[in-house]
Amino acid sequence: MSIAIYPGSFDPVTFGHLDVIKRSSTMFEEVVVGILSNNAKHPLFTVEERKDMLEKAVSDIPNVSVITFDGLLIDYMKAHDISVIVRGLRAITDFDYELQIAQSNRKVSCDTIDTVFLTTSIEYAYLSSSIVREYASYGTDVTDFVPKHVAQMLKNKFNN
Amino acid sequence: MSIAIYPGSFDPVTFGHLDVIKRSSTMFEEVVVGILSNNAKHPLFTVEERKDMLEKAVSDIPNVSVITFDGLLIDYMKAHDISVIVRGLRAITDFDYELQIAQSNRKVSCDTIDTVFLTTSIEYAYLSSSIVREYASYGTDVTDFVPKHVAQMLKNKFNN
Amino acid sequence: MSIAIYPGSFDPVTFGHLDVIKRSSTMFEEVVVGILSNNAKHPLFTVEERKDMLEKAVSDIPNVSVITFDGLLIDYMKAHDISVIVRGLRAITDFDYELQIAQSNRKVSCDTIDTVFLTTSIEYAYLSSSIVREYASYGTDVTDFVPKHVAQMLKNKFNN
Amino acid sequence: MSIAIYPGSFDPVTFGHLDVIKRSSTMFEEVVVGILSNNAKHPLFTVEERKDMLEKAVSDIPNVSVITFDGLLIDYMKAHDISVIVRGLRAITDFDYELQIAQSNRKVSCDTIDTVFLTTSIEYAYLSSSIVREYASYGTDVTDFVPKHVAQMLKNKFNN
Amino acid sequence: MSIAIYPGSFDPVTFGHLDVIKRSSTMFEEVVVGILSNNAKHPLFTVEERKDMLEKAVSDIPNVSVITFDGLLIDYMKAHDISVIVRGLRAITDFDYELQIAQSNRKVSCDTIDTVFLTTSIEYAYLSSSIVREYASYGTDVTDFVPKHVAQMLKNKFNN
Amino acid sequence: MSIAIYPGSFDPVTFGHLDVIKRSSTMFEEVVVGILSNNAKHPLFTVEERKDMLEKAVSDIPNVSVITFDGLLIDYMKAHDISVIVRGLRAITDFDYELQIAQSNRKVSCDTIDTVFLTTSIEYAYLSSSIVREYASYGTDVTDFVPKHVAQMLKNKFNN
Repeated sequence: MSIAIYPGSFDPVTFGHLDVIKRSSTMFEEVVVGILSNNAKHPLFTVEERKDMLEKAVSDIPNVSVITFDGLLIDYMKAHDISVIVRGLRAITDFDYELQIAQSNRKVSCDTIDTVFLTTSIEYAYLSSSIVREYASYGTDVTDFVPKHVAQMLKNKFNN
Repeated sequence: MSIAIYPGSFDPVTFGHLDVIKRSSTMFEEVVVGILSNNAKHPLFTVEERKDMLEKAVSDIPNVSVITFDGLLIDYMKAHDISVIVRGLRAITDFDYELQIAQSNRKVSCDTIDTVFLTTSIEYAYLSSSIVREYASYGTDVTDFVPKHVAQMLKNKFNN
Repeated sequence: MSIAIYPGSFDPVTFGHLDVIKRSSTMFEEVVVGILSNNAKHPLFTVEERKDMLEKAVSDIPNVSVITFDGLLIDYMKAHDISVIVRGLRAITDFDYELQIAQSNRKVSCDTIDTVFLTTSIEYAYLSSSIVREYASYGTDVTDFVPKHVAQMLKNKFNN
Repeated sequence: MSIAIYPGSFDPVTFGHLDVIKRSSTMFEEVVVGILSNNAKHPLFTVEERKDMLEKAVSDIPNVSVITFDGLLIDYMKAHDISVIVRGLRAITDFDYELQIAQSNRKVSCDTIDTVFLTTSIEYAYLSSSIVREYASYGTDVTDFVPKHVAQMLKNKFNN
Repeated sequence: MSIAIYPGSFDPVTFGHLDVIKRSSTMFEEVVVGILSNNAKHPLFTVEERKDMLEKAVSDIPNVSVITFDGLLIDYMKAHDISVIVRGLRAITDFDYELQIAQSNRKVSCDTIDTVFLTTSIEYAYLSSSIVREYASYGTDVTDFVPKHVAQMLKNKFNN
Repeated sequence: MSIAIYPGSFDPVTFGHLDVIKRSSTMFEEVVVGILSNNAKHPLFTVEERKDMLEKAVSDIPNVSVITFDGLLIDYMKAHDISVIVRGLRAITDFDYELQIAQSNRKVSCDTIDTVFLTTSIEYAYLSSSIVREYASYGTDVTDFVPKHVAQMLKNKFNN
């Protein structure tokens, strides 16, 4: 019945993201992980690399799929008949920004699109893709933060 | 498949609560509204009155039911095989407290119970049961905040 | 033209309150200090004592007067043709609560009543009436926090 | 007597800005809308375009004028004998930053310049110029967020 | 050289408190755990019971001692030549309140008393004495949250 | 015994930074001020200029030294056997970010590195290096915010 989308940059995907994906997959019939392919932000990984690492990471959860999208999230959702956005909440600063986006999405979609928030698991509350990128750039071991194949891809990227 | 519970005091139910109930009823197969019958807080309405006003208010949504519970929410949920809690988020102060409760519920339930948050609709963001009670106690019209039958019950309570 | 009301418990008035009163008196033609005479909160000072200490404290500002009120602030304001509420903001937790009250006041008054916020002066940002009461109850000198005549009234209250 | 300035980038002006302008025009004798002409931020609209769209939007409020300024706001205010800054508050993150600016402005001006905050109206609380720009860049209808003539200027800018 | 005090109600002590005590004992020469014996708050455990459970819990850390105090913390500190307060920070709401207390303590002590904050460890971030009391009152196992001897004392208190 | 590091950009050092340095020098045996020499952020002052201005500013505190570092702070700390990070907290937004960094530093260092927070003194709570840079760039007097020799270096930088 209800399909949910979990949008993000996933540059790279972390155990925090995977925790949200796993938990939402038990609540909704289908969960679509949506990678924003916006190149304006100069991501470390190409959108194809990010799609590959995510598909490998969620391959054991049957009702989760991975897509990439361009432009407005709500345009993609309308075109694919998805009505629920899933977001992870980590901090107070997140919260304010997320609230604003959630409200404007409801407004622009005339209340057809809604957002649900999951709280980030305690053990990943401090995690973010940018912290992982910074640690990896200095050769710090990041296997506590990301799946093994992602850690390897980071190693290759930074040649260390 | 997935049943969600929306717990609260509902003393009285407001349009803000009803907005969360309506929206979650489109996401989950079944939504149970759970009234905490704890009398320690000296509620204005008895648990029976609150159950009556809620049942009347949700009578047109087929997959929503109303129950009352005593004791720990997660004990009720385990006994009735419910795994998702729905909460509305209004403010930063809410957020901190709600986060703490959500995390401890996950811990105590060994990750079998999860919480999803919906943002309160913009037009009800300022609403709370206590503000409604205060306005009603001074005879201010509250039909912008609560259903008509609840406004009448408030009028009767305060004899005005 | 524009009259503003500065409501509060003032139990007792502090240099933080007086700073807000002084600053708003330069912005508005007339500032009314409104003491909530609600006894439910078991104030330390009676409403008469609080009125006396405030009148003494603002006696040198010509366009400031002190009143007491019962019931809803907006009912008092409508009856006396006042349309602006002044509030001091100290902290993030204040902010959320104040925002909620300000929004519901606008709603209930059909947009005829508005609220402006001043930020508490840096040197009084940590001050609150309850901290002053606690210090005074242990005989700590509070003349850095309140006018001399208020410090004396606290001394008398606590017999120290 | 008291003149207030409402500074901002207004890139473009939204219904949220206009709500603050309208409300402050009833509180102060004169309200000056001050457009920061700083080009370092690569605005979408030139300062002239922004002045035009604002003047059209406030043409029906007699005591509101529009100016542009360069450099420090408080230097402009001292030169033009303005002592009050008006700001709209939307979110907790805003609040912290705004508080910091307000305090340092008071310090640098030796307490001659003060800031008052209005809470953003509920129906515009989610609105920001950057969200409007993003929607408009994808051809989404933005007439719920900005005046018609601004929506047209956005359409022209993005050729859609 | 530097002695620090870690004040609180400890009703009961949790693993979160013990984590802060252990970490601060590596930073300061001596850490004094100060139990506020204020009975106004109707604690579950008497001040003697709380002292007993704490002493048992910290018996293996040589430079930590446990005391009880009445009245103002800073009066106790001055009398015992202690100049640093240690506090654990859990949440945004804590933060505001703690900041206010820390600033007023500096002011009243003429800058002779300072406060340092440690962040609560991730695994105990959701923990509070009141949540532990609530769980224990319903017979929920709390050995994940408090030392065994404290869990037993809770069991005895609630007869379950 | 315990050495603490106070890391930052110090571009330029302000009275707020110096207040934190002075206070932590009374708590720890040795305080190392660590200047991040990362040039990615396009600092106004070179790392050498920042080291010079800091050394001059702390020359009267015997147990404080100034160093510069590249790369991860925790790598520097491990190499030099430092286990405590000192940070000043100013605002709610700081707090969230700082908390995240503190938690990930503990994780990556296997709990060997801890962070303590001091609250910024009230009189410097509004201060930041970026505000000082902005004021100085317009020729505003900044001797209330930074030591005289730093004000002079800012004057030279901006040729005013």
